[in-house]
Amino acid sequence: MVPDSFSKAAAGQDWRSDLDSALADYAGRNWQGREIFLAERFEAARREIARWQAFANEGAELPPLAGAVMTVKACFDVAGWTASCASRVLADRPPAQSSAPLVRRLRQAGATLLAQTNMTEFAYGALGVNTHFGTPRTPLDPADERIAGGSSSGAAVSVARGYADFGLSSDTSGSARIPAAFCGVTGFKPSRGRYPTGGMAWLSTTFDVPGVIARDAALCRRIDTIVTGDTATPALTAADIRLALPAGFGAAFDSEVGQIFDACLSALRTAGVTIVEVPLPDLGESARIAAEGGVIGAEAYHLHSNHLAEALDKYDPLVGSRLVKGAEIPAHRYIGALRALEACRIRFDAASAGFDGFVLPTVPMLPPTLAELADEDIYLALNRRSFSLAEFANRLDLPSITLPTGAAPVGLMLTGTRGADRRLLSIAGILEPIVRITGLHR
Amino acid sequence: MVPDSFSKAAAGQDWRSDLDSALADYAGRNWQGREIFLAERFEAARREIARWQAFANEGAELPPLAGAVMTVKACFDVAGWTASCASRVLADRPPAQSSAPLVRRLRQAGATLLAQTNMTEFAYGALGVNTHFGTPRTPLDPADERIAGGSSSGAAVSVARGYADFGLSSDTSGSARIPAAFCGVTGFKPSRGRYPTGGMAWLSTTFDVPGVIARDAALCRRIDTIVTGDTATPALTAADIRLALPAGFGAAFDSEVGQIFDACLSALRTAGVTIVEVPLPDLGESARIAAEGGVIGAEAYHLHSNHLAEALDKYDPLVGSRLVKGAEIPAHRYIGALRALEACRIRFDAASAGFDGFVLPTVPMLPPTLAELADEDIYLALNRRSFSLAEFANRLDLPSITLPTGAAPVGLMLTGTRGADRRLLSIAGILEPIVRITGLHR
Repeated sequence: MVPDSFSKAAAGQDWRSDLDSALADYAGRNWQGREIFLAERFEAARREIARWQAFANEGAELPPLAGAVMTVKACFDVAGWTASCASRVLADRPPAQSSAPLVRRLRQAGATLLAQTNMTEFAYGALGVNTHFGTPRTPLDPADERIAGGSSSGAAVSVARGYADFGLSSDTSGSARIPAAFCGVTGFKPSRGRYPTGGMAWLSTTFDVPGVIARDAALCRRIDTIVTGDTATPALTAADIRLALPAGFGAAFDSEVGQIFDACLSALRTAGVTIVEVPLPDLGESARIAAEGGVIGAEAYHLHSNHLAEALDKYDPLVGSRLVKGAEIPAHRYIGALRALEACRIRFDAASAGFDGFVLPTVPMLPPTLAELADEDIYLALNRRSFSLAEFANRLDLPSITLPTGAAPVGLMLTGTRGADRRLLSIAGILEPIVRITGLHR
Repeated sequence: MVPDSFSKAAAGQDWRSDLDSALADYAGRNWQGREIFLAERFEAARREIARWQAFANEGAELPPLAGAVMTVKACFDVAGWTASCASRVLADRPPAQSSAPLVRRLRQAGATLLAQTNMTEFAYGALGVNTHFGTPRTPLDPADERIAGGSSSGAAVSVARGYADFGLSSDTSGSARIPAAFCGVTGFKPSRGRYPTGGMAWLSTTFDVPGVIARDAALCRRIDTIVTGDTATPALTAADIRLALPAGFGAAFDSEVGQIFDACLSALRTAGVTIVEVPLPDLGESARIAAEGGVIGAEAYHLHSNHLAEALDKYDPLVGSRLVKGAEIPAHRYIGALRALEACRIRFDAASAGFDGFVLPTVPMLPPTLAELADEDIYLALNRRSFSLAEFANRLDLPSITLPTGAAPVGLMLTGTRGADRRLLSIAGILEPIVRITGLHR
């Protein structure tokens, strides 16, 4: 399951094992409904991995992702499976005839497809709550009560539990990074237009990008190379890295999150990274503009209006009730928001010049328990809070990555400057071991 | 006033004269209000032309537009003038500090700026009616009763009366081509993104492009070369040209328009042009989508919402009453229209493959009289009808040009395939003399 070589499979990753033991672990758990996988091809995957193993034993040249196991979020077409977006609304639609170009490219590079992963219905929610298919919990909570986050809930758990090396995901406001942070793995959101979006179900045509949840930043970078052909690898050391710390956000963090974040900053500074506190008002401004302009709501309503008219009762009540509100957003307000975001991006680029990016916790809070979310008002408030930091990268169209801090369900988020995806991935590779500060010996 | 050489100034253009006699003509007419020019620099222009003349007499190398006289529609910034869009709403705003890049580029190429031209207020209307600043009539009507068309009304008259060689214009639904057709001159709408839009006041951010109204297609092409640096000049003869004739539109033409259009088609066929009747349903479909989605209304309302809230009473009643309706367009309908237009463009490109473009009259009717338009319902109906053919090029983002058919206020519209602006301009140059079929000896 490790692309570098078979002999070192899973080395240094004590929470993962080979595919057989991973699937034995999966089989032995008491999943509620289809909370992780909506469709699977375990046996075919076993055969594929065995075939790569045999090739490797023969000394054959292997493609770059040979031996890597992949899951695919249910919003991407995979030939033979229905991309239901974990919704009853689409569950009966015929299976896809062909796979999304991004899926095809990764499989052509040798990745073994294992399963289709569960998600927040239609990706409209950052906690991973799915009333119909089940809500995953993070493997980092021994009590199995705290949610895994979303919308790419199944993808994050599939990687965190060692069933897969990476999960293809999507990210509108943090849907790849939030569950990665809650589950203690790495999650990457590329710049818009960098990864092909064919065969991906949209939530917001302005903000959606494909995303990757993976066991580490090096694999994110390898995947980026395969998808884009971009092999740029800036030669950097920690001492070359200058990060902005956006001023004024600390008060918004849960105390545990703030403590871990401060410890990460200390570790980074000790390693030689320069971190400068800077006012970046256009972070908050970009989020405010998008919300007041109803950008996601209007775009999602456009995409769902026919289904809502015909089958509102089939929607997850937590999703359908919010989608219908998108009908009322006036076009001039939406248009105004898109224009204002353009201006925001230009101002932000000027303010962030001279930095490699900015650093924040990925989520300002610990994952809540599923029980807490039973109250709809609490659900809505915590949902908004969960993406309140991750969303900046979507509103401003910046590459962003969350790195695990260890055993705590807290991610450190590095967000790069405009179009500097490769530099961000290189920096993430350097800083990832440094910020792994909690529970190293759990 | 002719860029090729001074010695041949105005040769073969019996309705034009040199700048002195042109300005004498202007001074001798009984204009109502500021119906053609909102600002002028006649004396500075005279001095500039005299200077180019002196340089030419000395045998100096001249820039490509030396000797050409230009007017600029009141929606473009010109340093020292207020770009009022022919509206009382903006009339008191301070003069522009610098000129629009397009204006600067043309002046750097030697063009002499003569005046700022009147227009339909905020370009929101295709007949050129302006309640506050006056409504130009076409020089082709001896009774001086028929309107010049719009929104670039003053620009078209400035060229048709020989005051200028070309008028910088804009085109959202036909605003350059409709008045050019009504006034018997040439009007070109480039593909979106081809000409710089800085310093241009927007009506519709989706459909607006700068446009050029000029005395002939050769000057349009010369200007295109200067603006874009594109010197491609396809070597073509009439026999190489294949045009589609969209099926099913004939019944919509006024009989005089239909007769002239048929005579043009005959002349073109006689000259060797291939013309094939083809169903192109996405022409009408694109117009329907844009109207039902409220694309222009929503975008215009966004741009005007502050002014409408503060100063609705200052607007031309024919414009303000329509702009306020844009407030009600829902965002999802607007978004749906933009997506549907993308699909329409793809289908259209497939259907039009194998043709150099399509041919239609620019306007399905003769210019109405100003008296007819006093009734607001008739105004609104004729306004819609006036752009019902020209708008296809905006909705589908195609280059388009209107060629004069002679003394009749009827234009022949050639619309090119996607991005084939240079090919269209070459074809227009070949076909322009062929379609000049009416009143050659007036």
